[in-house]
Amino acid sequence: MNTEALSNIVGAQNYLTDEDSKKTYGKDWTKHFTPNPCGVVFPTSTEQVAEIVKWARENKVALVPSGGRTGLSAAAYATNGELVVSMEKMNKILDLNAIDRVITCQSGVVTENAQNHAKENGFYFPVDFAARGSSQIGGNVATNAGGIKVIKYGMTRNWVTGLKVVTGKGEILNLNNSLVKNATGYDLRQLFIGSEGTLGFITEVSFGLTRQPEDLEVLLMGVPDLKSVMEIYKLFRGKLELSAFEMFTDLATKYVTEMGRVNKPFTSEPPYYVLIEIETTNGAMDIAMELFEQALEDGIVIDGTVSQNEKQARDFWSLREDITEATSHKLPYKNDISVRVSKVPEFLERMDGILEKDYPGVEVVWFGHIGDGNLHVNILKPDDMSSEDFMEKCHQVDKQMFAMIQDLGGSVSAEHGVGLVKKGHLDKTKSLAEIEYMRGIKRVFDPDGIMNPGKVFDL
Amino acid sequence: MNTEALSNIVGAQNYLTDEDSKKTYGKDWTKHFTPNPCGVVFPTSTEQVAEIVKWARENKVALVPSGGRTGLSAAAYATNGELVVSMEKMNKILDLNAIDRVITCQSGVVTENAQNHAKENGFYFPVDFAARGSSQIGGNVATNAGGIKVIKYGMTRNWVTGLKVVTGKGEILNLNNSLVKNATGYDLRQLFIGSEGTLGFITEVSFGLTRQPEDLEVLLMGVPDLKSVMEIYKLFRGKLELSAFEMFTDLATKYVTEMGRVNKPFTSEPPYYVLIEIETTNGAMDIAMELFEQALEDGIVIDGTVSQNEKQARDFWSLREDITEATSHKLPYKNDISVRVSKVPEFLERMDGILEKDYPGVEVVWFGHIGDGNLHVNILKPDDMSSEDFMEKCHQVDKQMFAMIQDLGGSVSAEHGVGLVKKGHLDKTKSLAEIEYMRGIKRVFDPDGIMNPGKVFDL
Repeated sequence: MNTEALSNIVGAQNYLTDEDSKKTYGKDWTKHFTPNPCGVVFPTSTEQVAEIVKWARENKVALVPSGGRTGLSAAAYATNGELVVSMEKMNKILDLNAIDRVITCQSGVVTENAQNHAKENGFYFPVDFAARGSSQIGGNVATNAGGIKVIKYGMTRNWVTGLKVVTGKGEILNLNNSLVKNATGYDLRQLFIGSEGTLGFITEVSFGLTRQPEDLEVLLMGVPDLKSVMEIYKLFRGKLELSAFEMFTDLATKYVTEMGRVNKPFTSEPPYYVLIEIETTNGAMDIAMELFEQALEDGIVIDGTVSQNEKQARDFWSLREDITEATSHKLPYKNDISVRVSKVPEFLERMDGILEKDYPGVEVVWFGHIGDGNLHVNILKPDDMSSEDFMEKCHQVDKQMFAMIQDLGGSVSAEHGVGLVKKGHLDKTKSLAEIEYMRGIKRVFDPDGIMNPGKVFDL
Repeated sequence: MNTEALSNIVGAQNYLTDEDSKKTYGKDWTKHFTPNPCGVVFPTSTEQVAEIVKWARENKVALVPSGGRTGLSAAAYATNGELVVSMEKMNKILDLNAIDRVITCQSGVVTENAQNHAKENGFYFPVDFAARGSSQIGGNVATNAGGIKVIKYGMTRNWVTGLKVVTGKGEILNLNNSLVKNATGYDLRQLFIGSEGTLGFITEVSFGLTRQPEDLEVLLMGVPDLKSVMEIYKLFRGKLELSAFEMFTDLATKYVTEMGRVNKPFTSEPPYYVLIEIETTNGAMDIAMELFEQALEDGIVIDGTVSQNEKQARDFWSLREDITEATSHKLPYKNDISVRVSKVPEFLERMDGILEKDYPGVEVVWFGHIGDGNLHVNILKPDDMSSEDFMEKCHQVDKQMFAMIQDLGGSVSAEHGVGLVKKGHLDKTKSLAEIEYMRGIKRVFDPDGIMNPGKVFDL
């Protein structure tokens, strides 16, 4: 393997093979895998990425694209001697066009930096989620990131106006050039969105912007049961444009408040919480308060409060956004699934049945973007259970849960992607025929199979 | 060729080979081509479509999917002995789920019928265009239809939540099942959107719905020049959410008013018109009137009027929507192009230059969705010019215009698609490398090349 050529492409300082670097850059936020790359390169231009791909084809070395490494499906793990290609040094914001309302970034730009740049220019960057401070734009696109504002703004896919990519053949493609309308055959941009690095590298992203929301307020409610969560959803969604509708459980709140940053919002200790965010212009808050009164009367809400200032709004959001951090020490086994919104009640009921019957006493932290049909099921490891026993138990839950999801026509991965984690369950959401077409497409873009092999599906 | 088998699949009454039927179903709204299919079949189920594809593979017969035949790129023409597969009898609305906000239709449902069904159920079907009374949902998806509400609601692509398709291999795929979030590999649904029948058949479409807009008002303005059109766009777009921003010329208005249905709106006879539609809730109309006053003062508007009732709003819309019908007898040579919004002024200026210099005296009817960077350029045949001379002249304009579009990074087809009409110019918008990947994808879905061969690109 001619690694000198690699140094020549990126410069010696941008090609690392020390154990520390390999351990750091060979993984993402997913637990339970072991990083084992052959090295890490940090290209600084699209042309360098294309050279790296050509080198990899010649030398038959597999490549793992790496962004902010906040992924939760192990799509950015290099477990098998691959070369990690980190986009960390391709971190320039290239352009913001106020008439087109488009920001163009290198793919290694951190989400929050793009958000801030948009804000400074009077616009709003509408994809947002807890990992905003570390995740990179390219990774967001590669997993079609969702997050907390999907109910209003949709997924990452809705906002990608153009991509520059390097295919697995080493060819540079400019996809769509930020045209609003472009009816010229297959939209290859769409294939790269959500491709998890299996077709090529995303090196530049153009992203649509929208107007800044005005006067956001947060309404936090204590809810007696899951059925009521759905009733609240129907009530508010029918009358208001919501910018978030989040659900979480008392157990989640217990772990978050134990960290000491925020307090329990209610003395009533309700089993479920609903967080609604609303843009309060045009009398929306009056409507929201009327609906809240009605919900109290109907008994679907047992307690509630409205943020009085920005600090309190942030605290309410912390109750939701800090769950992952607050439960991290319990080595949670994470599942991120979705069903149609109309199927959420049936899913929750059947899931409760599975957990209560077969796994009594195991702590499960639920939270979710109800308006998207997206639920996060985090099973916490009991302190007295070995990791091995715990994983075995979780895989048993998986089997039952994924069979049920298939039955309900849902998805085994709502927003985390497939990577290594969900690969074995992909056929619960996609038919074998559909997966075979996916393989065919991969072969078109990556004939040598060097792009993130073994992720999403095996060839 | 075993055509008895075809009768067995769809029933003898649904397989026609008479000359009239072949002539009727072998074409779309595009002029200047000659229909020449071998027959027409009318399947009534997805399974029948799959059987037809299998029959076609065995018998090496090419298939042309056919919807409402309102296309303007000849993608639904059968010019070469193909079998036309009309979706006309797959015209059932299958479901409307109010919680998921999704309508599911067979692909032969006429757009307006789906719109009306949504309205009857308290929802709004957000893709709309002049051909709503004839176009079919499947065709809308196959060309990723745009239309008059894109500035607010986006293209068809934004609203397709699920598809049932039959690939060129005869396999039935259920794509996405109307999940809001589904991060399980490549989104094949996106490939079929805008594929113009080259990958397979779309047999069922699930489409997202939104709330009915309230109190739409139309503001019609007379404008002195194209530069002012852009200034008006910036002024209004910056302060208001618009549901339409349309531009057309005095010549277009002359032809429409000559039909006698509507009158000229102003005595001042301005060279350009801008039509803005606004949802007037929450004081939007007050803002609009302030902006209008400012535009008058700035001299970028020379006349203006606001619809006083629904009838007048419809009349204003007629000035825009009847242009195609009103100019049809002049055998217009149509071009439908797009550039980034910020490039529109440069495009218009350069285009004016080309037309004035090389084609003085030829009538050109312009209209466009300025907010999408989408312009329709219709060149009218002078009465004293032969069709042959006219076409030759138009093709010369094309060459200059498409070279300029390539230079500006625009699209040779904004919303009409490529079909047969734009095939020769595809490389002005997509690189040869990108077109080669498109060919590779087609081979994956249609290995025998039976699906609408020769459309979009040649293999």
